[in-house]
Amino acid sequence: MAKVTGFKTVDVRFPTSRGLDGSDAMNQDPDYSAAYLVLETDDPKLSGHGLVFTIGRGNDLQCDAIELLAGYAVGRDVDDLAKTMGDFARSLVRDSQMRWLGPEKGVTHMAAGAVLNAAWDLVSKNAGKPLWKFLADLSPEEIVDLVDFRYITDLITKDEALALLKEASANKAKNEAALLANGLPAYTTTPGWLGYTDEKMVRLAKEAVADGFTLIKLKCGVSLEDDKRRLKLAREAIGPDVRLAIDANQVWDVNEAIHWINSLGDVNLHWIEEPTNPDDVVGHAAIAKGIAPVRVATGEHAANRIIFKQMLQTKALSFLQIDATRVAGVNENIAMLLMAAKSGIPVCPHAGGVGLCEMVQHLAMFDFVAVGGENPDRVVEFVDHLHEHFVVPTNIQRARYMPPLLPGAGAEMYEQSVKDFTYPTGKEWANA
Amino acid sequence: MAKVTGFKTVDVRFPTSRGLDGSDAMNQDPDYSAAYLVLETDDPKLSGHGLVFTIGRGNDLQCDAIELLAGYAVGRDVDDLAKTMGDFARSLVRDSQMRWLGPEKGVTHMAAGAVLNAAWDLVSKNAGKPLWKFLADLSPEEIVDLVDFRYITDLITKDEALALLKEASANKAKNEAALLANGLPAYTTTPGWLGYTDEKMVRLAKEAVADGFTLIKLKCGVSLEDDKRRLKLAREAIGPDVRLAIDANQVWDVNEAIHWINSLGDVNLHWIEEPTNPDDVVGHAAIAKGIAPVRVATGEHAANRIIFKQMLQTKALSFLQIDATRVAGVNENIAMLLMAAKSGIPVCPHAGGVGLCEMVQHLAMFDFVAVGGENPDRVVEFVDHLHEHFVVPTNIQRARYMPPLLPGAGAEMYEQSVKDFTYPTGKEWANA
Repeated sequence: MAKVTGFKTVDVRFPTSRGLDGSDAMNQDPDYSAAYLVLETDDPKLSGHGLVFTIGRGNDLQCDAIELLAGYAVGRDVDDLAKTMGDFARSLVRDSQMRWLGPEKGVTHMAAGAVLNAAWDLVSKNAGKPLWKFLADLSPEEIVDLVDFRYITDLITKDEALALLKEASANKAKNEAALLANGLPAYTTTPGWLGYTDEKMVRLAKEAVADGFTLIKLKCGVSLEDDKRRLKLAREAIGPDVRLAIDANQVWDVNEAIHWINSLGDVNLHWIEEPTNPDDVVGHAAIAKGIAPVRVATGEHAANRIIFKQMLQTKALSFLQIDATRVAGVNENIAMLLMAAKSGIPVCPHAGGVGLCEMVQHLAMFDFVAVGGENPDRVVEFVDHLHEHFVVPTNIQRARYMPPLLPGAGAEMYEQSVKDFTYPTGKEWANA
Repeated sequence: MAKVTGFKTVDVRFPTSRGLDGSDAMNQDPDYSAAYLVLETDDPKLSGHGLVFTIGRGNDLQCDAIELLAGYAVGRDVDDLAKTMGDFARSLVRDSQMRWLGPEKGVTHMAAGAVLNAAWDLVSKNAGKPLWKFLADLSPEEIVDLVDFRYITDLITKDEALALLKEASANKAKNEAALLANGLPAYTTTPGWLGYTDEKMVRLAKEAVADGFTLIKLKCGVSLEDDKRRLKLAREAIGPDVRLAIDANQVWDVNEAIHWINSLGDVNLHWIEEPTNPDDVVGHAAIAKGIAPVRVATGEHAANRIIFKQMLQTKALSFLQIDATRVAGVNENIAMLLMAAKSGIPVCPHAGGVGLCEMVQHLAMFDFVAVGGENPDRVVEFVDHLHEHFVVPTNIQRARYMPPLLPGAGAEMYEQSVKDFTYPTGKEWANA
């Protein structure tokens, strides 16, 4: 019977802007960072870890926002929390005064996500299960109780979600066995950063194919001529059968996106990701129509379930990219999984950053086992950076995410890493 | 030649939750607050004032966010700033690392707005003009330079905006004379708070009509039976000719909104405001279609110009309600004025709160003089609270906003008010 006794936040930053790893058309000098939260309990062996991924400045503000909401967890009994995570999520998101600062978007909404994800880490550790398994073992009734259906009932009601989950549960055992045996397919962005030379990109793309990846993604959107040349080189490097996607990181206006993508030539693109602003549902729908048969993927910056709902209603996306730390945690991401399943759209999580792979894999695995089921288009982003700092790092085998078997939700970092990269006092910053 | 030398922020909160002023279906216990910014210069007589309106908890976080961005103003020469406000706005909104925390939404975006609005206060005071006049005196070329057209060119390009402003400038002198003589029509929400008894609502509604208001607004959305009764009483109190609007403050899902509004009976509603979540463009469009001929008004929580663009593209609103402190300041609100003018939709600003009337009136007056011109549907919200704390308070004559003639942008508060209501150390809180 552990109880939450307190919390601490830490401003953790990795000086990635010193190289060009992580560079794209919009984000040219990111310092990959985590606004890191630890929920402490009266059991010295049990703590809950969550984080918000940011890219540097403002990570301190994100920590401040988490501190404003983490108090909701203090004093809660962990067993009781495990049974009431839906109510807990709603209490964080609906704080009657804090809500004004969003609503349900930006720093305060991501803070709610960090607190929720840390609480999920706590309850799944307490149950001795990895998060994906903890969620998959819940009943359909328990799962729908986790979700805030407010504002999405015109796409899916609680009853419709329940029916969907009940139908999916027939395949749970089979899907879980398949997951444990084969994992889930990953795709890689490692070759594709804009700062890389053509030679480095081609070499890394070939290595990715040799490693078994069947989808690779390149950043694009700064120069049309560069994009044409790099895509041609990449296609030659990977051959005709490996899928090739591109990511513009929101750099275009709507008509510019349509023109640019239609000018790239025939390189058989699997998707174009984030062609324009993440709030622009109508724009994404216009782009999707204007570039068919090339398809749109988006979501890493979509603020909440209401944006995703509209993207699905207007057929603005063909691949729905949830992010572990952009929205109000596991709970709101389950709403995305349900809406996508209802709409017949595959969920292909965004990852990379700091700990995003470690966290979001649980959601993709839960989706496979208990919600969306088998889907040949489901693929989870993988970027091979910073995993060494995580207590349960991703386990990629032949380009597939193998399921974590240790308890927890994935965000826990090694204490030494947290200490060394604390901004600005940790040794990695103090010595810079 | 004044120069910005530094800044300070103050967490100012008014204990309005002790009464029921400001209560509505979503916001049941607001403490009307201002995350207040002062830009200081080396001229002791010149300072710039901006604020973000919040409703209590998190106002300290909003101050922290402002502090992260206010540094962009320090060291700037005020004369030079006056000539480069467009670039200054883009530098705040596009900070390459902070952008991740939005983008362009929530606490960080509102912080950019506070810094910009304080800078506008500074440059208009330095020019000896009220903001509305400072803006109206700019050339069409100078005005379009203020605006970030990124992501809105599918509705309006810079060239189209320029043409629109040039055409409007033919009526500038005539409109300015009309403004100085007659002001702009206000409407009042004072009678309509949910916490008020029927008797108080009816009495205040009659007083509003006697004061000359031709549009009054009631909060709604908690109980359909209550809404029917209150609307019937209000209509009887104000007679058939005064316009009557209602405001649901985001309380409904989409289908619920349509059903509720269509069940209210024939009270000849002028508009229904914020029927659902502010991010839900598709939902607002469905509601607009489902409740015609009743029309939709929204915008006080719309995060940025991209949301407004889509609302206009999908005919989701018939009245566009800008807010002085929700978006990236005067600059982004000029984008709204231009998009609304192009779309033939009247701009009817949201106000109330803390200082919102004082600030947003300048934008409505600039719109009338130099952008949208004469429009019988333009009306500016007025709530008669907290004006006594402002150095240049609103001047309402016969239910019309009379233009401020003193220099500045409206956000400056009396030092004593700031001191007394500083949270939690000011005497109004320390004694509570």
